[in-house]
Amino acid sequence: MSGNLSIESPRDLKRLSPTELRALAKDIRDRIVETVAKNGGHLASSLGVVELTLALHTVFDAPKDKIVWDVGHQAYAHKLITGRDHLFHTLRKLGGISGFPKRAESPYDVYDTGHASGSISYALGLAKARDLKGEDYHVVAVIGDGSLTSGVAFEGLNNAGGLGSRLIVVVNDNSMSISESVGGLSFYLTALRMAPVYRSAKARLEKVLDKMPSLGPVAVRMLRRLKGGIKHFLFPEAWFESLGFSYYGPIDGHDIEAMQRVFEDAKALKDPVIVHVVTKKGKGYEPAENDPEKYHGPGPFDPATGEILRKSGPPAWNKVFGEAMCTFAKAHPELVAITAAMSDGTGLGEFREIYPDRFFDVGIAESHAVTYAAGLAQGGLLPVVAIYSTFLQRSYDQIIQDVAQQNLKVVFAIDRAGLVGEDGETHHGEFDLSYLRTVPGMVVMAPKDEKELVNMLYTALKVPESCAIRYPRGAAYGTPYRDALLNPEFLETGKGEVLLRGSDANILAVGSTVYPALEASEILSRSGISCGVVNARFVKPLDRDLIFELLEAAPLLVVEENVAAGGLGEAVKSLAAGIGHHRRVAAISLPDAFVRHGSQSELRKLSGLDAESIAEEVRHFLKDAYDG
Amino acid sequence: MSGNLSIESPRDLKRLSPTELRALAKDIRDRIVETVAKNGGHLASSLGVVELTLALHTVFDAPKDKIVWDVGHQAYAHKLITGRDHLFHTLRKLGGISGFPKRAESPYDVYDTGHASGSISYALGLAKARDLKGEDYHVVAVIGDGSLTSGVAFEGLNNAGGLGSRLIVVVNDNSMSISESVGGLSFYLTALRMAPVYRSAKARLEKVLDKMPSLGPVAVRMLRRLKGGIKHFLFPEAWFESLGFSYYGPIDGHDIEAMQRVFEDAKALKDPVIVHVVTKKGKGYEPAENDPEKYHGPGPFDPATGEILRKSGPPAWNKVFGEAMCTFAKAHPELVAITAAMSDGTGLGEFREIYPDRFFDVGIAESHAVTYAAGLAQGGLLPVVAIYSTFLQRSYDQIIQDVAQQNLKVVFAIDRAGLVGEDGETHHGEFDLSYLRTVPGMVVMAPKDEKELVNMLYTALKVPESCAIRYPRGAAYGTPYRDALLNPEFLETGKGEVLLRGSDANILAVGSTVYPALEASEILSRSGISCGVVNARFVKPLDRDLIFELLEAAPLLVVEENVAAGGLGEAVKSLAAGIGHHRRVAAISLPDAFVRHGSQSELRKLSGLDAESIAEEVRHFLKDAYDG
Repeated sequence: MSGNLSIESPRDLKRLSPTELRALAKDIRDRIVETVAKNGGHLASSLGVVELTLALHTVFDAPKDKIVWDVGHQAYAHKLITGRDHLFHTLRKLGGISGFPKRAESPYDVYDTGHASGSISYALGLAKARDLKGEDYHVVAVIGDGSLTSGVAFEGLNNAGGLGSRLIVVVNDNSMSISESVGGLSFYLTALRMAPVYRSAKARLEKVLDKMPSLGPVAVRMLRRLKGGIKHFLFPEAWFESLGFSYYGPIDGHDIEAMQRVFEDAKALKDPVIVHVVTKKGKGYEPAENDPEKYHGPGPFDPATGEILRKSGPPAWNKVFGEAMCTFAKAHPELVAITAAMSDGTGLGEFREIYPDRFFDVGIAESHAVTYAAGLAQGGLLPVVAIYSTFLQRSYDQIIQDVAQQNLKVVFAIDRAGLVGEDGETHHGEFDLSYLRTVPGMVVMAPKDEKELVNMLYTALKVPESCAIRYPRGAAYGTPYRDALLNPEFLETGKGEVLLRGSDANILAVGSTVYPALEASEILSRSGISCGVVNARFVKPLDRDLIFELLEAAPLLVVEENVAAGGLGEAVKSLAAGIGHHRRVAAISLPDAFVRHGSQSELRKLSGLDAESIAEEVRHFLKDAYDG
Repeated sequence: MSGNLSIESPRDLKRLSPTELRALAKDIRDRIVETVAKNGGHLASSLGVVELTLALHTVFDAPKDKIVWDVGHQAYAHKLITGRDHLFHTLRKLGGISGFPKRAESPYDVYDTGHASGSISYALGLAKARDLKGEDYHVVAVIGDGSLTSGVAFEGLNNAGGLGSRLIVVVNDNSMSISESVGGLSFYLTALRMAPVYRSAKARLEKVLDKMPSLGPVAVRMLRRLKGGIKHFLFPEAWFESLGFSYYGPIDGHDIEAMQRVFEDAKALKDPVIVHVVTKKGKGYEPAENDPEKYHGPGPFDPATGEILRKSGPPAWNKVFGEAMCTFAKAHPELVAITAAMSDGTGLGEFREIYPDRFFDVGIAESHAVTYAAGLAQGGLLPVVAIYSTFLQRSYDQIIQDVAQQNLKVVFAIDRAGLVGEDGETHHGEFDLSYLRTVPGMVVMAPKDEKELVNMLYTALKVPESCAIRYPRGAAYGTPYRDALLNPEFLETGKGEVLLRGSDANILAVGSTVYPALEASEILSRSGISCGVVNARFVKPLDRDLIFELLEAAPLLVVEENVAAGGLGEAVKSLAAGIGHHRRVAAISLPDAFVRHGSQSELRKLSGLDAESIAEEVRHFLKDAYDG
């Protein structure tokens, strides 16, 4: 720790005075700001829960007691006080510690998460296992208000309330995780936050009612029969209590002693309890307090000013998508956009400004987003659903049932496909080509560059089929695309694009692997190998004729940023084996394993997807092809 | 209609008197019982909503107004009064009308569903499309209390409440859809149902409070400021109202006139409203009223007595699974079973009786079920999650993130894999081999018969990896398996089983296709073709050595009851093309399209998966192999 306090483990916290804890909170914040300013990371959420983390770790005895962080991007303070201070400078770096809890990293981490809203279900599993095994420890789930929007959080609450297991759910209410979207639940949480205003009124009312013989016997019986008496009716905590939870709160989430008192109370309960803690995202770092969305997951920034260090360079994929949406919305009055708490992340900020009525951020609710889109389509609109690849996994059933099975037309803009970099294994979009290929009737495509993304969106809006377009996180290439916005090109469904003819070998690439394949071809040409490059464009339907032509011409290497099972490589290989082609087809795909964190370029290199690796694979492959 | 009333369309209902509507309700029930007694189908749910259906169709003007049935297995009365009376005898038959709403069947059907809980999201999409397009019609979602357990229903409610769209959600509360499981929400609905008891008390209390100057100014302000005054606090409808809905109810769901009055009121609202209707599952047919679970989806039965006509024959796959679970639970005290409102359907009824503490029915909440299982595993237990293939699609993300990515050990017992028969396109388990193959580290297997199912469960419990075992709906083969329960055989992971050696061709089959493949081999032998049969057993990992051996030996046909994309066929073909094997590999898989309803054997035949079709395919294949 940069300050004067040395914390090796949560045990060290227990000897600290309240004043020392507050000083420690400041040290932790400094350390987080300093590190995230260098490495990038989840700043605002982590700053918001520093006191909450200290309160939890002073009251509970981790790792015996289990603290289950939802989403996990708020766990930096937790990491700093659980033996990872000395590694904290490696945060999110290749080989360094993860930006999320990892069981392999520390016994204090019990849930490797990254996707929102599973903490209650998981904690309930832990609690039930504890009870069945006759063990005795506390289980605490910490979940943000935004995460409560998601259905799985509700399913967990409902089941926990029904089972009545001993379980503490801390609702970390920073009243803004859901960016600008508001569901009914957020009104409700607002009502809860306002409840203290009515506290004194309540006490007076209870007294008055107690003294009212004139109330009538039925009403009195009604009040008496309800455990806890009138408060269940008079205050909005009834929502959680209806589901079977006790409710404590709201509590100031920056007042360590107040939280300690409530956690001590909660420890004594034998039933599920909600502790509602109100925190401020970005707390203690002014730029993040003022604009917590901007500092949710910033790249490197100047810690003194908060200025985010933008590398000049090509536009990000999501920016190009957002521009294309704004442009095409003019010609398509029926076009609407849906996202799930990823408005800015998917580049739809400008669309939201220009077309507020045609933009829907449904909160962290990917399953709903897709069924809602299906309803919009049935109602005569043209919905584009923009969700990150890894989170769209939550909509697999809805894509099959509500979109494809009904033959409704929905366009899926799948951002963050492939390796996303520093967020690591929970955030890579490794599976979408595979799971989308299974969906009957779905057209699946991936653009090689900005211009093709524009043309693909244009095409997707035109064709009758539901379409998925997947593209990477981060910067594109800087290829010109504004002309395409004005004069977009319709891409014939299922037709690939020959970029380079080659006589010794061919590479069939798709999406993010096309430019590296071109570069690989150039590398190979230097050693006299003539390697063609074909852009598949469509993963479904496949360009069978072109693939057969390629098989005839030369050895074929398929390169994709997706797992092998069910991906483009398998699709092409199956085509070859299906006709008994003599040609060996090789493929570079992501491994059948979870890829860890690091920069995108490091991870792509490690996965054999950079130009050098592709060239090397072609060389090996040619050697095998002629040797074997 | 079998009675005296002829209903061609809902328009005809509007001229009927209340007495005539009640008579019609009886006719409809008779017709449903008579038809389901012959064809099988969803009896109890459909009987429960006859009056609700008539009330909806007299108050609303479908198809202009949209009635969105959740799950859809309660839509028989709706079908009978929307022009499908004359086709009703074809219910669930090949080429006949579907047991679920189908947009292609009727303009009165707006949502082709079968999976629970999407109706609110879908209806919200319709409502929003209506508003954006400046159209004017009513949108009504009808959802059961069981379906409310599912997260996507909550996501829909939350979003609808937040948006404030004009939308009517009818909660059809039959207080039992969730079989024996109870979540917190079901306690809540019980509280709502009990609310009328307190109505008179409420009226008196309001009067009293009105006259209380002694209450103090803050409390009075608090009460006055809240729209609707004290009722928001005093009655449990606060739960729905917290989410932004008005609440009407509870209403007797068998009193047509009472419902008509409330629906007329609801029509006038501009905001989302819940109409809480209480119905009795199985209403009007005594056997179904007395045991609505048994008559939820019965096969043919004697309408006079209710006796279900059991064909004597081999045991069902789920029964064998249930027996194996009960047996292995003895040796594995850490074994626990989780299901999602499919206790009896998955054959876990006996396990639930014997091991009530180790059995968890979480309600319709598949996503939660898997994360909960992950938590149980992290807590030191050995969870077996039993869910139908088609519904497990809702857990895809949780399987990847919470089980595989964490490297926790969970066993998936995937019932109803492949073609399920009469329930049709929403219920077939066509995709599981594909989506599970993408999951890093997952072992995926499918048994050829009862004994192998037992051995696979035994193996799955033993190996360190998470395992998925997929098996069909319905009757198995009657092969002996009780010995295997006593002396189970450990199956080496990733090793296939050669059943028959053949010199002309080989079939690599898996699961439900192995016995038909053996039969096909016999058929072929009659025309002098020697066709070997190999049971793949494992779809992941593949038995590479065995497959290479087969490729060397003779032409190879892969047969699977799963879509082609990402299935066993593609896996095997990829292996062949990956080494550039000269051999053409053929495959029979399910088509890249949704398979409609019909009997399992009809559908398998249509999909080319019966013995004759397989034999025919081998013949063609051999002809091609030698011609080409």
